[in-house]
This record gives sequence, C-alpha cells and structure tokens, in this order.
Amino acid sequence: MYKAPVDEIAFTLKHVAGLSKAIDEGRLGDLSDDLVDAILSEAGRFASDEVAPLAEIGDRQGARLVDGKVIVPDGWADLYRQWAEGGWNALVAPEEFGGQALPHMLNVAALEMWNSGSMAFALGPTLTMGASEALAAHGSEALKEKYLHKMVSGEWTASMNLTEPHAGSDLGVMKTRAERRDDGTYRIFGQKIFITWGEHEVTDNIVHLVLARLPDAPAGTRGISLFLVPKFLVNDDGSLGPRNDLHCHSLEHKLGIHGSPTCTMIYGDGKYGDEPGAIGYLVGEENKGLACMFTMMNNARLAVGMQGVAICEAATQKAVEYAKERTQGKAPGWTGSGMSPIIEHPDVARMLVTMKALTQGSRAICYSCAHAIDMAHHTEGPDAAFWQERAAMLTPIAKSFATDAGVDVASMGIQVHGGMGFIEETGAARYLRDARIAPIYEGTNGIQAIDLVTRKLPLSNGAHVRGFIAELKAVADQVRASNLDGFGATAERLSASLADLEAATEWMLARLGEGDAATALSGATPYQRLFGLALTGCYLAKGGLADEENGRDTRIALCRFAAENLIAETAALKDRVVNGAASLTAARVLFA
Amino acid sequence: MYKAPVDEIAFTLKHVAGLSKAIDEGRLGDLSDDLVDAILSEAGRFASDEVAPLAEIGDRQGARLVDGKVIVPDGWADLYRQWAEGGWNALVAPEEFGGQALPHMLNVAALEMWNSGSMAFALGPTLTMGASEALAAHGSEALKEKYLHKMVSGEWTASMNLTEPHAGSDLGVMKTRAERRDDGTYRIFGQKIFITWGEHEVTDNIVHLVLARLPDAPAGTRGISLFLVPKFLVNDDGSLGPRNDLHCHSLEHKLGIHGSPTCTMIYGDGKYGDEPGAIGYLVGEENKGLACMFTMMNNARLAVGMQGVAICEAATQKAVEYAKERTQGKAPGWTGSGMSPIIEHPDVARMLVTMKALTQGSRAICYSCAHAIDMAHHTEGPDAAFWQERAAMLTPIAKSFATDAGVDVASMGIQVHGGMGFIEETGAARYLRDARIAPIYEGTNGIQAIDLVTRKLPLSNGAHVRGFIAELKAVADQVRASNLDGFGATAERLSASLADLEAATEWMLARLGEGDAATALSGATPYQRLFGLALTGCYLAKGGLADEENGRDTRIALCRFAAENLIAETAALKDRVVNGAASLTAARVLFA
Repeated sequence: MYKAPVDEIAFTLKHVAGLSKAIDEGRLGDLSDDLVDAILSEAGRFASDEVAPLAEIGDRQGARLVDGKVIVPDGWADLYRQWAEGGWNALVAPEEFGGQALPHMLNVAALEMWNSGSMAFALGPTLTMGASEALAAHGSEALKEKYLHKMVSGEWTASMNLTEPHAGSDLGVMKTRAERRDDGTYRIFGQKIFITWGEHEVTDNIVHLVLARLPDAPAGTRGISLFLVPKFLVNDDGSLGPRNDLHCHSLEHKLGIHGSPTCTMIYGDGKYGDEPGAIGYLVGEENKGLACMFTMMNNARLAVGMQGVAICEAATQKAVEYAKERTQGKAPGWTGSGMSPIIEHPDVARMLVTMKALTQGSRAICYSCAHAIDMAHHTEGPDAAFWQERAAMLTPIAKSFATDAGVDVASMGIQVHGGMGFIEETGAARYLRDARIAPIYEGTNGIQAIDLVTRKLPLSNGAHVRGFIAELKAVADQVRASNLDGFGATAERLSASLADLEAATEWMLARLGEGDAATALSGATPYQRLFGLALTGCYLAKGGLADEENGRDTRIALCRFAAENLIAETAALKDRVVNGAASLTAARVLFA
Repeated sequence: MYKAPVDEIAFTLKHVAGLSKAIDEGRLGDLSDDLVDAILSEAGRFASDEVAPLAEIGDRQGARLVDGKVIVPDGWADLYRQWAEGGWNALVAPEEFGGQALPHMLNVAALEMWNSGSMAFALGPTLTMGASEALAAHGSEALKEKYLHKMVSGEWTASMNLTEPHAGSDLGVMKTRAERRDDGTYRIFGQKIFITWGEHEVTDNIVHLVLARLPDAPAGTRGISLFLVPKFLVNDDGSLGPRNDLHCHSLEHKLGIHGSPTCTMIYGDGKYGDEPGAIGYLVGEENKGLACMFTMMNNARLAVGMQGVAICEAATQKAVEYAKERTQGKAPGWTGSGMSPIIEHPDVARMLVTMKALTQGSRAICYSCAHAIDMAHHTEGPDAAFWQERAAMLTPIAKSFATDAGVDVASMGIQVHGGMGFIEETGAARYLRDARIAPIYEGTNGIQAIDLVTRKLPLSNGAHVRGFIAELKAVADQVRASNLDGFGATAERLSASLADLEAATEWMLARLGEGDAATALSGATPYQRLFGLALTGCYLAKGGLADEENGRDTRIALCRFAAENLIAETAALKDRVVNGAASLTAARVLFA
C-alpha cells in the first residue's frame, strides 16, 4: 500500500525547487519550514491512511449511473467530506473566501499525495480548485460571494465544461450556445462530453463552468463566453432553489480512473424547469471566455503533471516492495541461500532505478513549475515577469514529461511484477490504466509541445529560454566543482545534454524566426522530451548537491545513474529535432 | 475494423525475410509463390471477416467460470471450430499426423493475422501448436498415435503447464510431483497457475502437458519431467474414458486478453476418479522434461513475438483510420476549408509513421526468425548449424522487440485518438491491455536479454553474431550503392547504428570472456533493444531495395524515416551497455 514519501517531497520542495530560499527571502509571508513539514506530514497521513485504502474499491466498482443518479464507489462520499473538512480543498484559495492562501508548491505536493492514493478520487477536487481559481479571477463580486465560499470549502464541487464531440483540442468550433435574457442571466443549450465529476450526490450542489457561444459571437475562439451554471439554483440567502435544466445523460466506460464519473452533460433540453434552457451567469466578459480559462490553464496542466508524478511514485513503491520480496533464480554474485530476491537481478534493478529517476525528475520539474507560479504571485516589478515566463515555460514540460513518465513507469511496474503484474488484484495494472489518460487531457502532450515551441520559446525574444539554459549549465559546473566521486561522469553528461538542448533550442528559434512553423512543429515533441530529460538530470544533480545529510549518497547515486544511463537520449532527440522533418514530410506518402 | 494486410505480409515474407529465395533454391519442396499467396489470402479473409468481429465481445464478456465450467465468449466456440475445420491448426504439423508440413514462415504470418483479429482468441491455438510440436518431437509412438492426430486437427486443444506460484522464471523450484505406477503410468499432484486455455468446453477433450518432479529426481531444473495428462482419459479405440483427476480451480481477472481463460489448475486432489492423482504419461525421458520444452520454446517465443507484431498492425490501422477522419484545428500549411484531418498535424503524423516503422520492423525481424527456423529444418550439413544459430539468435530479439513495440504502438494508438482513446468502446485501449502481457509471458523480455547475451552471443565463439553484423553492413552498403535519393541519409545512419551494435557486441563478448556476467547482464536489456533497432533499420532498407514495384516510394520513405528518426537511439543504448553498469551498481544504495 502507498505510503506518502513526505521526507522526499519536503526535500525536493525546499532544496531542489526553491521553497526554502523563497521562505528565507521572506517572499512567502510567515510560512515557515516547520509549518511546511506539518502540512505535508498531515497530508501524507491522510493520503496514505484514508485515500489509498479506498482506491481499489473505487476502481472495481467505478462510478455508476442508476436511475439518473450518479453513484460513487462505497466510502468515497465520506472520504470526500473528511477530506474537505480537513481544509485540503482550500490550501491556495484566497483568504477572503475561506482559503488559506498558501503557496501553490504546497498544494501540488498535496495533490501528488492525493493522486498517489487514488487518482480517480483526487481528480474531482482538482477540477473544483481550477474552477474556483477561474471564478476568483474573473467572476463578479456577487457571483463570488454566492458561490466561491462553498467551492473553496469543498461544500460544493465544480466541473469544467469545455469539450464537445467535435471540439476537443480545437475549442473554436464548439456549438453549445447561450442566449441573453432580459434579467441579465443567460440560457445555455448544448451537449458537453468528458465532464469529470459532472454529476454525483456527494455534495448538495455542483457548480458547472460552461463555455458557450452567444448568437452574435465572432467565429472561432474569440467568440466563446464562460458561464457559471449551477446544478441547483441558489437563492439570495444561500439556500438551494429549484433544479436547473441540466443533467448527466450517460457515463463513459473508461480504461482507468473508474471511480471518477466522466459525464456527458446535457444543458437546456427542458428536462427541468418551466422553459428549456439552463440558467447561466456570465463569468468575465462576453466572448472572453477562453481568456478566463487560460488563467487557470497553467495550474490545471500542472495539476495533471502531478498525476503523472503521483502514479510514478505509487507504482515505483509497489514494484520495489514486490522486487524485494519475490525470489526467483540466482542473480550474478548472489551468495545467499536459495533464490535471490529479484531486485538483485541487474535487469530488474535497472528498471527500478529508472523508475526512481523518472519519478524524482518529474517531481522536481513539477515542483519547480509551482515555485515559479508562486514567485510570480509574490514578486513585483520585472522579476514578476521573469517568473511568469518561467512558469509559462515549465508548464508544458511539467505536464508532458511527468505524464509520459507516469505511463512508462506504470508499465515498467507491471513488468517488474512479471505475470502477477497482469492480474488486476495485484494493483500494478491499475496504475497503467489510470495513468494513460494524463498525457491526453488538459491539452494532449502534442498540444503541450506546440505550446512550448510556438508560444514559450519566443518569450522575451528567446532570452528567457537562453537564460534558463545558462542556469542549468551552472548546475553542471557546480557538479564539476564539487569534486564528489559519487557523481561519476555526471558533469560531462549534463554538459553534453545541455549542449543538445541549446542546439535544438537555437534551431527552433531560427525556424520560428523564418516563420517556418511546419518544420519547427515536426520536432516539437522530441524537443519537449529533450528539455524534460535535461531538466531531470539537472534537478537530480541539484538534489545531490544540496543534500548534506543522510540521503546524500542515494541522491548522488540516483543522479549519476540518470546522467550515465538516461539523459544520453538527448543526442538522438536533438538529431530528431534538427534532422527529422524532411523524412517526416517524405513519409506522408504512406498515407496518401 | 482490422483488415489483414495480406500484400504487405506477402512482400515481407518473400523479399525481406527470404521466402522467395528459399523457394527458388528448392528448399521448400513444391511450395510456390502462388500457393503462398492463396494461403495468406484465405487466412487474411478469415482473420478479418470471422475473427476480428468477435474480438470486442470476447473482451467485454471475458471467459467465465460458472458452476465449475469455463464458458468462453459468445460465438467463440463456433469460431474455433470453423477455424480448425479450415485446417489452420495443422499448417506446420507433420503430414503423418494430418498436418500440412508447410514452412513456419507461413504459420507465423497466419498467427499474426489471427492475433490481429483477436489476441485472446488466437492464444489458445498457439498453445495447442506448441504442445503438438513438443509431443511430435519427444512422445512415444503410442502416445502420438493416440493424441497427436486430434491435436493437429484441432479436435482437441492442449495446454502447457509450467508455472507455479513460486516458480515462474525459475522453473527449478517447482513442486508439482509425479509418482510412478506399476503399469508404467504416473500420478500427478500439484497446482499450476496462469494456464492458458486450461479448461473450456469448446472441444471434447483437452491435452495438458505438465512439468512435474519425480520423488527421486535431482534438485533444480535437471529433475523435471514432462507428462501428458488428458482431461478425459482416452480408450484404446480412441473413445473418451472417465474424467481424469484434474480441474480448473479459478480464472484470473486480468488486464487484458479477457476472452482467454487463464486457469489455476489442480492436479490430483481426488475430485475425480477412484484414488487421488491425475493419470499422466511420460513424454520423453524422466528428468529430461525441460529439454523437451526447449524444443518448442523458440517457436513459442516467436509466436508471442507475433502477438506484438499483430497488435502493432491492428493498433496502427485503427489510429490511421481515425486520424484521417477526425478533424481538429488547422495544421501548418493546411489550405483546405475548415479544420484539417489530425493526420495533417506533424505531431500526429510523427506518431503514425513511428507506429508503421515499428510494425514493419518487428514483422521483418519475426519473419526472418521464422525463415531461419525453416532453413534449419530444410538444410543439411554445416549450413543447418548456421541456420539453427541464426534462429536461436533472432528468437529473443524477435520476442522482446516485437512485444515491446506492441505495447508502445498500442499506447501511441491511444494517444492519436485523444480522449476517445481512453473510452473502451473505441477499441484502442483494448490493444494496450492485451499487448501488455506479451513482454512478460514465455520468458520476460529481461529473461530474453539474458538468453541473448549469455547463450546466443557466444554461439560459435562469437563468430555467428560477427557474421550477422557483417551481413547487415552489406545492406547499408547496398543502400549506399543504390544512389536512390529517397533513402536520404539512410546509408550513413545504418552504418552508424551498426557500428554501435558492433561495439556493444564486442564489449559484451569481452565481458563474457572475462567471466564477468554481472557486468554484462547490467547492459543486457539495452543491448537487446539496440540489436532490434539496428535490425529494424536494415530490414526496412531491404524492403526498400527489393521493391521495384508500386510500394517502392512508401517502403523507402518508411525506411528513411526510421533511419533519420528512430535508430539514432542506438548511440545512447550502446553507451548504456558499455558505460552504464557502474552507476547501476552504485545505485543499489537506493534499496539498501
């Protein structure tokens, strides 16, 4: 069973991702290391002792639609209420609405733990947090007063309604429509799909944020507005009014995250109310809905990245435990009696160390992204712009690298278990089934790569990414200067990978400068992966360098393994970026 | 829905893997190109029209244990009977037992198609073929006369009983025991797990081949004997006698291949018969059971490799079809009206071409392995030893590379489908669930790597592998000499990858020469992958070179893409082989 790695999480936050420095500099108010430890420790206890034990039943029972009601797995409603009562929904929310206004770094660390416990369970609250953030940033005072307190406390959950059957990555073609009413409200009509936690009975009400198009809206993404559409209308005294005209039509039968209801939602077909049309309230301005969503997009993408980290951690823990217990054959050099634990076999050890490196690399990238978000919030002047750019740049890498790692690590976890890994009762297979959605939703990893290359590399005319690479080179120099034998060839390997990153980056910037998006995008995904691998090497090195205490040997050893085994892939990735486009174009003949 | 790529399969067999040359040389009797085409065409029709349509119901219903009976999915029993009546079970079996004695190349091509149609369905017959082969090679004439005809015709199926809870990769510790009886028969007692198609009602009888240990057997793998243990005893006139003392205790609940019953089998607990003990008949000699199994091991491993190829093909077909139909956004350079098909987006195209390359590379490796098996059977003198070595060397690569590709390609197939890929009804997710077992069973891919490095590289003191690499270098030279522009940088890329393969091979041989198995095995898995990638490049090049007809452009374009995008990974893999061991050893501190 999953046990939250609180010490590792705390170390990474503080010493790799920059939390301690930010605290020392007074950027984070009266937050102290001790408070950080206390929060992480309690979150870890809840995730390990309360969430994780209910993951398997959630997977087995799944969410069910019975007589129009969505039923969540046994025990989940109570679990959710306990979780909300613990204040976990409110970590980062503004204090005026009952939040604790803590740094995002703490929230993503907590998100990691909830998701390691049960990704299907953690998904619902993640959506509520995102919706709360969008509402806090763009909602009118009246809307916020009426809804946000209960969204922050978790008394009500929220959902995000973007996708339609023909509008996934491309939201510009969505058809859900909104009509103005004389009283300033709107009526919403349409169908939304893949709506996570779109319907359930766990809370009294559900707040849907819905993207829709007004009759006179411009075509495309500039004609989309955002509406708050509650399941039950809310009276001025805060009590619940009549049911709004929306309902869950069906649930998806999915590969994983079975406990999370994925709903097809119907708005405005007349099932409820006097006249057809779900009553909605505008959030932000008309036709500016997508901009409102972008406010929370970075955080939502990072939250999905945390799912990748979470699966990595949980799958690795399970595999290591099995590999220490299961005996089979005699590993080379094994001198014990009988069969050796399979962890002694080099092939199994290679898988496990690789899993550890990907877990810790993904974690450090994601926490560093959260750090940049926090710094942007707590910094003024030009430095704020710097941190905004850093957060913007790290977000697609965090989302894609960590979610790809989640799939790869979960798959390796199955392999370590051998035949038992394929048996559902073992639990290793669930991690792969759950993990597989994360590279897809909140913008596929291919979309992230497009974002990284076409929107993030050009930030400050390329100066930001060049500065970032210079920072990373300094890490390699520190490793070199440390003269610690345990690092092996880490310094030279890091330098080589960073040279690959630099060359690929300059190539990308040159293509963008020429307006040659097609060629640049041919290499976007390998470029994104290259960046993630180079960051993994550097962040693992930062961990080794920073650690003066017990874990030093292990952190340096993990870094060395990554440097000497994993990050050499950057050479092939750079080659694919720089030289791969022509053959990809030529290969289109295959599909003619 | 899957449509068997009969032309591509035929081309690969004939012009990449060597079938046409073998026919021309008269090695394969009166087999003609026309007969090959006719067989492939009919197998393709059956796989596409009969097997594939029943895959989804098989997955959804799964095999069920009801009142002690194993029920297969609706329609599967009829499907099996049609399949057996078509003679498909008998392709390679000896003529004296009703087989057609055709080359293995044809059988693996057919296996690919059955598995593309439904891996869970095809798995049962695969086991029967393996058991038939073992019995044909090692059974007494009496046993063969009584059982083999009906196993070859498919009137009875067979199962292979190796694994026990504590004996998976390491069969030496198995506990199932056999006792001698005065009448020359044996009584078998014990439990076997993960027994594919171990029980069902599709056929009147099931022939179990069971490994067990005699009371006075030496410890370890040298004390294991092989027994034929029928579900129903068979009278001398061939009619069925009483039920033997064995039964299916339970079915596994698995990630995939749901339609295939995976049984826990109990032998000799007294449920049936006068006295406890399942009646068994010795196959081969006492304590030589494992050697009997090794006879069929190569073919069984190759058959699992075909599952990987099969999933690659089916998942790629599905993804290409979806990517041509689904429209979303505007790809760079898109001049059509409205949204572009997602196949126009470079990231999606990159995934699809990669899937195609891995499919075709895996197929060519596996067919080449089958070719070597056939050549070994149809050659005499020193050349026979050469082909035996070639088959032995290619087997672990074929099994591991193709099954890893199956998982990777199925996962990419999900990604191409976006959110729809995660919905079970789409069918893309099933390919990943099914594919995930193939890197595990019939010897995990880690075991394959150990086999490749410690048993196959030393063949002929390393001369075989060196000769093989020389053959591959000749392919690169032919590409260079062809002067075909379409190949792009293929020749130099192939040469670089083959240099990596050569360097890694010499390093491995040196470690083995020093008796340093631990260091060699640290790099066994990356070495195996390196070999597979280099072969992929060379076999795709052979396809491009051999193709003088319609497909030439596409074959050369696919080769170029693989050469300029995929096989550059060999440099990192070589580095991991040659330089990775020390850091892996150092990283053991992580698990201390």
